[in-house]
Amino acid sequence: MASTELVFSSTAEHRAWLQTQAPLPRGFRVGTTTFDFTPEEVAMPARMTLTLIALDAPTDAFAAVFTRNAFPGAPVLIGRRRLAGARLGAFIINNKISNVCAPGGIEAAETVCAETARLLGLSPEEVLPSSTGVIGWKLPQQAMLAALPAAVGALSAGSALPAAEGIMTTDLYPKVRRATVGDGSIVGIAKGAGMIEPNMATMLAFLLTDLRIPRTDLRACLARVVARTFNRISVDSDTSTSDTVAIAASGRVPCHDLDAFEQALGTVCADLAEDVVRNGEGVRHVIRVRVDEAPDEAFAHALGKAVVNAPLFKCAVAGNDPNVGRLVQAIGKFLGATGSTVDVSRMRLSIGGETIFENGVFAIDPRKESRLQAHLLDAQLYASAEPQGGIFSPPIDFPPHERCVEVGITVGSGTAKATVIGADLTHEYVSENADYRS
Amino acid sequence: MASTELVFSSTAEHRAWLQTQAPLPRGFRVGTTTFDFTPEEVAMPARMTLTLIALDAPTDAFAAVFTRNAFPGAPVLIGRRRLAGARLGAFIINNKISNVCAPGGIEAAETVCAETARLLGLSPEEVLPSSTGVIGWKLPQQAMLAALPAAVGALSAGSALPAAEGIMTTDLYPKVRRATVGDGSIVGIAKGAGMIEPNMATMLAFLLTDLRIPRTDLRACLARVVARTFNRISVDSDTSTSDTVAIAASGRVPCHDLDAFEQALGTVCADLAEDVVRNGEGVRHVIRVRVDEAPDEAFAHALGKAVVNAPLFKCAVAGNDPNVGRLVQAIGKFLGATGSTVDVSRMRLSIGGETIFENGVFAIDPRKESRLQAHLLDAQLYASAEPQGGIFSPPIDFPPHERCVEVGITVGSGTAKATVIGADLTHEYVSENADYRS
Repeated sequence: MASTELVFSSTAEHRAWLQTQAPLPRGFRVGTTTFDFTPEEVAMPARMTLTLIALDAPTDAFAAVFTRNAFPGAPVLIGRRRLAGARLGAFIINNKISNVCAPGGIEAAETVCAETARLLGLSPEEVLPSSTGVIGWKLPQQAMLAALPAAVGALSAGSALPAAEGIMTTDLYPKVRRATVGDGSIVGIAKGAGMIEPNMATMLAFLLTDLRIPRTDLRACLARVVARTFNRISVDSDTSTSDTVAIAASGRVPCHDLDAFEQALGTVCADLAEDVVRNGEGVRHVIRVRVDEAPDEAFAHALGKAVVNAPLFKCAVAGNDPNVGRLVQAIGKFLGATGSTVDVSRMRLSIGGETIFENGVFAIDPRKESRLQAHLLDAQLYASAEPQGGIFSPPIDFPPHERCVEVGITVGSGTAKATVIGADLTHEYVSENADYRS
Repeated sequence: MASTELVFSSTAEHRAWLQTQAPLPRGFRVGTTTFDFTPEEVAMPARMTLTLIALDAPTDAFAAVFTRNAFPGAPVLIGRRRLAGARLGAFIINNKISNVCAPGGIEAAETVCAETARLLGLSPEEVLPSSTGVIGWKLPQQAMLAALPAAVGALSAGSALPAAEGIMTTDLYPKVRRATVGDGSIVGIAKGAGMIEPNMATMLAFLLTDLRIPRTDLRACLARVVARTFNRISVDSDTSTSDTVAIAASGRVPCHDLDAFEQALGTVCADLAEDVVRNGEGVRHVIRVRVDEAPDEAFAHALGKAVVNAPLFKCAVAGNDPNVGRLVQAIGKFLGATGSTVDVSRMRLSIGGETIFENGVFAIDPRKESRLQAHLLDAQLYASAEPQGGIFSPPIDFPPHERCVEVGITVGSGTAKATVIGADLTHEYVSENADYRS
């Protein structure tokens, strides 16, 4: 999916590259502020960052897609309404608490939007809220209102990097991707890192462009791009209650080629989506499943998802174990559960380019095993560090490379294809989600 | 699900109880033998146990249900054919290699059946094979043929326990359950322990009875019972290529009450199914989800499965973290993905009997949090032992109790209900499936 293969050897090197991606398109400013508070629901201190993304002038060219989880957060409910509005002037985003099904959640989010609007000279309907973090807790409304002036005061037209950092929760590093179209640019930021199997959108991603794209085109374009990028990833098969992908176009630069814009947007989203998986909670291997010769694209997509969501295959990859049986199990589980009638004897499977199954039987031997294992080791992002007090933590906070475990599934029953990006299942994932309270 | 709540404080105590469940019904004998071999596909030694369950005389009263995985093992393909046969005289079962999609797999299994039949004076079609273990490797046919006479020589009418032990793979302990109906009995054995989300049947389970049940009744009864027992469990959402539940009735004892038989069979299967989860790979908490007031039973079943298969909720349970947000996320993911139209504001959720969500919002506070956490700790089977070289292993090889994390979902949109049994997601699971080659 990534347009270029990047290699980094340190946090500083990665950060220097992020700076090259972060120059804000014309017409946008970002500002952040961080403060401490105590949630009502538990007796322990917490820290929140408010991230403000403001347009110099409200635009009618904005679009968003939201989670399909049946318990959407208050910001998602509000965001759906905002889509009907005439213009958008700002995004106000908080981490730490996702404001989902909390008593008074809608009112709290609207109050924060109204105060943001007042400080920026907008109407409340021109501010789109987003929240990410713990589900169930209430927003610390008073503390947020008190912190807003500092976020406004920090607004700057330089770099998107503060915003990419401000929206992080368990992400180890910020995610920023950029593409240019003629004289204009698209800059996207995203945060992961768990509860990632987007259904319409991933966690939070904000896409900013100075290109002039009509609202209708922008919305159609975003829907098409998201379907093939953010909707094709999974870290852990769980679907966040807060998933949002939003785009705003300041319209400062004429766009002469809508196709080129859509292609550039597709690249930014595909790269961000893969970034989200690569920095997914506890991820040590990114798994790329390319399905081809499928009866239709929905089948190809669903089959790829079934493979990257099969816990035993994910564990085998974590252990650098080329366990071909668990791959076949995952495919067979999907075909059996969906009542598919594809002829499995026509299916060809590969790992790292090596054919491991064809004509209905496995094709493995000890030498091929060794090559498969080498492929898995080569795709590993880092070796597990010794656990401290039984807790496993990733030893690095940058992506050392962009290699994947490459799985090929040639179904032999059609011409459709899809690529799905997933991840392994590691001690680091369990430590992140069982050993810490979050 | 369990009819009685058992508590054990040692392996010896558990084993003594297993002996009380193991007396073979009249008309059956079991024998096992163990041998070493080297698989063709990898250069490392392995050990296999052959388990033979023989009827004193072939019976026409037998039934079986098999996996819906689209890559069934050779024994499953053969087993489906056997169902059309007139009589069954023996089960021949091996562990270590599941004989799935291996070149020549059908022929190898048939050869083993034929030799078993020859030694027992049966026809080959009267022997039902089962295999469990690594997917993809070939059966060590010659070594198995050489070992068969020892299994036949070991045949004994005393106890089912040797068979329950003989079929184990990563199970920590054997599983045997017994029920009586009038003068007759039903004794069942089962093995888990990973790749468990049965679809028609679980891994391997064999049910033996001396009651005289007509073949048609036996088959209908087994299908009904399996749908509500083995098909209602999940350890890791993966569906084995070898899942088989088989029953044979020797017919030595008249059965005057078919309903009583079905009820007793239901109890044996429900208890075995829960045993399989409780001894699932790395399981530290069994999770029981009771769904009620659902639109229909299929919905209730699928919703329960969605909860016990949500990785983030499973991790939270592993960490004794009453993370109500992750429970709501799992439910919302299911409702959103299936396009359900149930009114979520009518849903009531509980953990350990405490209401945690109603009227569309959470109902939590620090004191309730403490009680929820106590419930999770009380349901824990063992505390994680310090990892050795980064590898987590369960510190006990018996089930200390039969308590569950109790999750209640009152949908508020109907009268149907279902109970689903699942498990947490632990370091022990990852160690079992990533840190060892299997």
